[in-house]
Amino acid sequence: MKKLSDNDMWIRKVGAEMIPPSLKDNTADADRLQKVVRKTLQTEDVVVAYSLLKKLPRLLREYAYRVEALVFMGRSEWRLIDVMPFQHATGIYGIAIDLGSSTIVLRLLDLETREQKDEISFHNPQIKIGADILSRIHYAGLGRDRLEELQGLVTDRVNQEIHALSEKHGIGAGAIAGIAVAGNTTMTHLFLGLDPYGICREPYIPVINTPDLIRSSEVGLDVNPEAPVLVFPNVGSYFGGDLIAGILASGMSREDEISFLIDVGTNAEVVIGNKDWLMACAGAAGPALEGGVAGMGMMAGPGVIDQVAIDPDTLEFRIRTIDDLPPVGICGSGLIDLVAQLFLAGMIDLMAKFVPEKCGDRLVEIDGIRNLVVVPAEASGTGRALTLSQPDIDALVRSKAAMYTILTTIANTVNMSLDEIERYYVAGTFGTYIDPRSAITIGMIPDRPLEVYVPLGNTSLEGATRALLSMRERDEIRRIRDRITYIELNVNQEFMNLFSAAKFLPHTDRSLFPSVRANS
Amino acid sequence: MKKLSDNDMWIRKVGAEMIPPSLKDNTADADRLQKVVRKTLQTEDVVVAYSLLKKLPRLLREYAYRVEALVFMGRSEWRLIDVMPFQHATGIYGIAIDLGSSTIVLRLLDLETREQKDEISFHNPQIKIGADILSRIHYAGLGRDRLEELQGLVTDRVNQEIHALSEKHGIGAGAIAGIAVAGNTTMTHLFLGLDPYGICREPYIPVINTPDLIRSSEVGLDVNPEAPVLVFPNVGSYFGGDLIAGILASGMSREDEISFLIDVGTNAEVVIGNKDWLMACAGAAGPALEGGVAGMGMMAGPGVIDQVAIDPDTLEFRIRTIDDLPPVGICGSGLIDLVAQLFLAGMIDLMAKFVPEKCGDRLVEIDGIRNLVVVPAEASGTGRALTLSQPDIDALVRSKAAMYTILTTIANTVNMSLDEIERYYVAGTFGTYIDPRSAITIGMIPDRPLEVYVPLGNTSLEGATRALLSMRERDEIRRIRDRITYIELNVNQEFMNLFSAAKFLPHTDRSLFPSVRANS
Repeated sequence: MKKLSDNDMWIRKVGAEMIPPSLKDNTADADRLQKVVRKTLQTEDVVVAYSLLKKLPRLLREYAYRVEALVFMGRSEWRLIDVMPFQHATGIYGIAIDLGSSTIVLRLLDLETREQKDEISFHNPQIKIGADILSRIHYAGLGRDRLEELQGLVTDRVNQEIHALSEKHGIGAGAIAGIAVAGNTTMTHLFLGLDPYGICREPYIPVINTPDLIRSSEVGLDVNPEAPVLVFPNVGSYFGGDLIAGILASGMSREDEISFLIDVGTNAEVVIGNKDWLMACAGAAGPALEGGVAGMGMMAGPGVIDQVAIDPDTLEFRIRTIDDLPPVGICGSGLIDLVAQLFLAGMIDLMAKFVPEKCGDRLVEIDGIRNLVVVPAEASGTGRALTLSQPDIDALVRSKAAMYTILTTIANTVNMSLDEIERYYVAGTFGTYIDPRSAITIGMIPDRPLEVYVPLGNTSLEGATRALLSMRERDEIRRIRDRITYIELNVNQEFMNLFSAAKFLPHTDRSLFPSVRANS
Repeated sequence: MKKLSDNDMWIRKVGAEMIPPSLKDNTADADRLQKVVRKTLQTEDVVVAYSLLKKLPRLLREYAYRVEALVFMGRSEWRLIDVMPFQHATGIYGIAIDLGSSTIVLRLLDLETREQKDEISFHNPQIKIGADILSRIHYAGLGRDRLEELQGLVTDRVNQEIHALSEKHGIGAGAIAGIAVAGNTTMTHLFLGLDPYGICREPYIPVINTPDLIRSSEVGLDVNPEAPVLVFPNVGSYFGGDLIAGILASGMSREDEISFLIDVGTNAEVVIGNKDWLMACAGAAGPALEGGVAGMGMMAGPGVIDQVAIDPDTLEFRIRTIDDLPPVGICGSGLIDLVAQLFLAGMIDLMAKFVPEKCGDRLVEIDGIRNLVVVPAEASGTGRALTLSQPDIDALVRSKAAMYTILTTIANTVNMSLDEIERYYVAGTFGTYIDPRSAITIGMIPDRPLEVYVPLGNTSLEGATRALLSMRERDEIRRIRDRITYIELNVNQEFMNLFSAAKFLPHTDRSLFPSVRANS
């Protein structure tokens, strides 16, 4: 494969062939190595890590003064942290981490070829303390030991997975030379063992916005003890490093044209801007889009409904599940599909209420609440009918209305209309699975040609990967951080008016959604 | 007392009054503090130590966002390592350490007033492993645990003494915010836990010449865990940080005129130069000048002879001892006095041999070797006569000849005569006690007006003190290190000829010592 120029890599192996010491040149071991590395890197700013000094004399003699020096660019100088046999086949590796509150993903990267070697994801083990962030913050507040317990849960599991990856790929722990971590503000704090108390209490103050590089040994990671850990900065309690990573991954902060970046989760996080400016805001989009909230909702997994089509004539449901198993629930993207299809089929009206004459037998009442039978008990994987209640739909509508209102408001703030924005990057694994056609149908996102919507997948992981593989990208993080303006959504009367207008399907102002033709 | 400008201090308390967080300004705690400190220090380059982050939220709230920030200048940025109550009376302190192989001296410094608060000295506890450096190097080579044992002996004792000093002066451990250490190359290695193996074996390679600042916690010192430890660099195995500290303390590297710096110990270490250049060399001066080698020799202490006068007419000995106690031995400066006086009294000749007719009854033979009774048994503090043997004198003569020859050789190297050098700085406690008149009499140092000899006392300690109290002085260390040329004394025929000529009292060429008039 093509050997990429390594000029942009900030974690590197540098070949260092020294003239062995003699009476004529009795420069000390560390200074001798430093001298050669300085010459190769063409800078005086090379410092040798103290911990390396303890083993350096032995290693230099063992390798006959021909070594590969492991260096990384610190704040303003190259740090020489280890030595390896000269031109040894073993490479150096990095781990990009998406530190989600539900799911953590590790990606193993070859820092020489920039290849992705492997990827692994697992549930955040802190879930056993609390499924949501707030309960973890509360737990951490019960004492230093609880905070350390939460930190340990993540680092222990991450270490386990790193060991497994290392074993699988035959990598020594010392060869893992860099880590980049992107997570929301709370997850970042818990990862670093920092008190998250202030994050969820007025006036919502994190301990730190912009951490420096930290040594892996200081955060308890079992890789090269001097390996740098790059932690993505946050802009505030509600705008975390995951979003900065998203901006980095989208590339929008380098483009001339103005784009939106949309991340839909518990919060609707939206960024607008280009290479000159960036504006961000986050607002509670409501939990309807997260699995586990709608009665039949759950996180994506085997048997979960991820796509729904309703024949407008026969009103027959065609349901797709993950792994084609009997359905057990529905995930966020499936829910959007379902509601869009119900609307197109006329089974719910523009106020998102069930239309009994269209729903027919599928409409049942459970505890006095109207429910639609999506999957009858006999076809379900759980043995019980999967049903969607009117309140489930109402919650989704509030979420979609919040998203659309936020987009409108932020565009208004910069005196643009939604139609003028040429690209909508959609962040998150969730974004990848949403059918934009369905999201438009329910009026969650503007009625634009589908090609303006660019799903980016796991942008936290992608951003962390880029930061690990490129000094330019790493520098861009600070540029993003410094240029971004975070606006608190001012939930005033105007916002509420916009919000109310957006609570219809697709919108009270049908002219905004010319492509949506409901069967009503 | 006069408040010195603190512009030159690189370890400082910086007052930081912050506007407490509000919904309008929800900058994170660390970033908020950093911002104020950046403004005060007028630089963007301020980073917050990771370990401080863990306690920062609590402390900022406890102190109501008005604190004193403890900062020090790292390699290229200010490091913010701790916070204290605003305008609190408790100061910040530093410890300068003279890390001698025999004696360790700690000096407690007030880093705000630059006052010296206290000083304490004690025998290097490594002596119990080996009195001389070589035996310690050998011991360290027996295994990592032995090396750590040697390191621990020093750090444990230093910690003990720091605790005692702190208690005495009511100083919290966190308030000791900087340490500077000057020692020879081996002592520096043992202090840092670095393998000294290469130092004493051809081609004499230290592990490191120029260490960076190290965190106190990394070397096991019980002070502020983030406090910087400045370790003086060495130029090679035989030219250590103690000498660099000596050059710094002398000020010679800033002067226009060319000076000598002389340190007499086991090695005669000599530096010549000025603000433009520096040349250094070290040669074994022989151990005759160190206590414990001459039969009656010992380190300075109670009852030790430090001054001798012999009446040229009556040949009566007038002996001064430390604390006026009955004599128990003689220290290096006393020995030089004694031999000079013996020569002036005609009791030894210009070849430094006893003159029996002058010595009279004082001359005795012990095991076939001529000895001079300096103190008869009845006057001695040991109950036995204190005697000086012919071999003792011969050893001293070799040492003084080596010193004189080194001075001549190094002056020749730069095409100067000894008379052209306007100042001879004499380093070391030992140098303080030598009577330059006596040293001239035996031909150890050139026959120059006494005012050219400037005793500097403990220059390791003084250099360490200066480096701790001033950024300019700290920077000067690197300038000294970079400009110094270390020359290996080429012990060729010419050197040997000069050496032979210098083995007479004061010299074969009497014209070199016009002021010396022996009673012969």
